[in-house]
Amino acid sequence: MKKEKVSEAVIRRLPKYYRYLKELERIGVERISSQELSKKMGIKATQIRQDLNCFGGFGQQGYGYHVKMLKKEIKDIIGLNREYKVILVGVGNIGQALSNYSGLEKEGFNIIGIFDVNPKLIGNTIRNKTIMDIDLLYVFAKDNNIDLCIITTPKENAQEIADMVIGVGIKSIWNFAPIDVDARRGVCIENVHLNDSLYTLIYRMNDNEREDLQTKEDV
Amino acid sequence: MKKEKVSEAVIRRLPKYYRYLKELERIGVERISSQELSKKMGIKATQIRQDLNCFGGFGQQGYGYHVKMLKKEIKDIIGLNREYKVILVGVGNIGQALSNYSGLEKEGFNIIGIFDVNPKLIGNTIRNKTIMDIDLLYVFAKDNNIDLCIITTPKENAQEIADMVIGVGIKSIWNFAPIDVDARRGVCIENVHLNDSLYTLIYRMNDNEREDLQTKEDV
Repeated sequence: MKKEKVSEAVIRRLPKYYRYLKELERIGVERISSQELSKKMGIKATQIRQDLNCFGGFGQQGYGYHVKMLKKEIKDIIGLNREYKVILVGVGNIGQALSNYSGLEKEGFNIIGIFDVNPKLIGNTIRNKTIMDIDLLYVFAKDNNIDLCIITTPKENAQEIADMVIGVGIKSIWNFAPIDVDARRGVCIENVHLNDSLYTLIYRMNDNEREDLQTKEDV
Repeated sequence: MKKEKVSEAVIRRLPKYYRYLKELERIGVERISSQELSKKMGIKATQIRQDLNCFGGFGQQGYGYHVKMLKKEIKDIIGLNREYKVILVGVGNIGQALSNYSGLEKEGFNIIGIFDVNPKLIGNTIRNKTIMDIDLLYVFAKDNNIDLCIITTPKENAQEIADMVIGVGIKSIWNFAPIDVDARRGVCIENVHLNDSLYTLIYRMNDNEREDLQTKEDV
C-alpha cells in the first residue's frame, strides 16, 4: 500500500514541531496537550492533531503528547536520526558563518569538504577543515559519497556548481546564492533567500505605517 | 476608501518578483510577457497578473511588462526607495556574516550600530563600525531613530533584546535566533529559522529515497 503524500505545508511545519518539542524537553516538560502546544506554537490544536495524524498520530486521549517520544518520532521522520556528509562551496560571509556553525554538526551534518576559487582562501582552515580549490570538488564529491551540498557562492556561479554536484550524484542542495537554482528530477533543492525575508518584513512595516496614517485620516 | 488587504502569499512573492526583474534589467531585457515571466519564475501567468493587479497592474495587453518600470514599482511597493537605520545585536557567526554583507547597504539598509555582550568582541570593528557593549543599546537606539533591529544572539537572549528594542520604539525585527520571538501589535517580526529550511530539505531527500525504494518494491 502506498502512503498518502504529505502536503508541503505539513512538511514545512515539521521542523517547527521539532524545535518546540526539543525546547519543551530541555526545560523538563514531560507531556503536553495539543491545546497547550497550540498556544505555544500559534498553530490551531485541530491542525496539530491533523498534522501528526499524517505520520500515525502520537497523542493519547486525556494524556496528550509524550514530549520526548514525540520529539524522537519527528526527529526520525525528518531524518535526523543519522549522519550526513556535507560539502560547502563558497567561503564568503554566509559560507564562513555556516562552516563555523557548530549547530549543524550537533544535528548530524558534518561538513567534510569546504571549497572556494579564491587563492587567498585556499589552504586556510575553518574548524580544522582546509579550504580546498574548487577544481578538486568533483573528485572529492565522487570519492566521498556526499549527501548534501551547501552553495554559498555568488549568484553567477551557483547554477554551475549545482549542475556539477548533481552530476556527481548528490541528491540535495541547500542554496544561499540569491538565485533560484534548478535541478533535475530526484534532486531536492532548498533556496534560501535572506533578502526576500527582509523585504517581506519591510513591506509589512511600511504597510503598518500606511494603515496608521489611514486610520488617522479616517478619524 | 480603504485599500483591500494584500494577502500574505502575495506579500511573500513580491521580493521574488523584485529579484527576477532586477536580474532581467541587469541582463538588458526591456519588456517581458506574463507568460515568459511565468516560465522563468515557476509561477502561473494568471497568478502573476492577479498578483500585480493587487497593486494596480502594470502590464499592457500585447506589450507585456516594462521590466525597468515594473521593477521600480515593486521596489517602491516593498519600500526599498528609502534608507533604513539598522542595529544588529549578537556578533556570532550569522551576526558577523550580516554585518559584513555589503548587499544590505546596497539596498538601503545601513547597519549603524553593532552590539554584543562579549568583552573580547566589544571595541573591535566590522566594516568600520565599532562593536559596542550591549549596555549602550537602549540609549543608542533611543537617540538614533532606528528602523530595524537584527537579532543574531543565542536563543536565550532573543526575547529580552526584542522586548528592549520594541520598548524603544523600533517597529521591525529580523530575528535569526532559533526561537519565535513574540511582539506586540504594530511591531513586525520576521523569524528566520535556517535549520527549519535544512530539515525540510532533508525530509524531502529522505522521502525521495523512500519513494525510490517503494517503486522498486512495487515492480
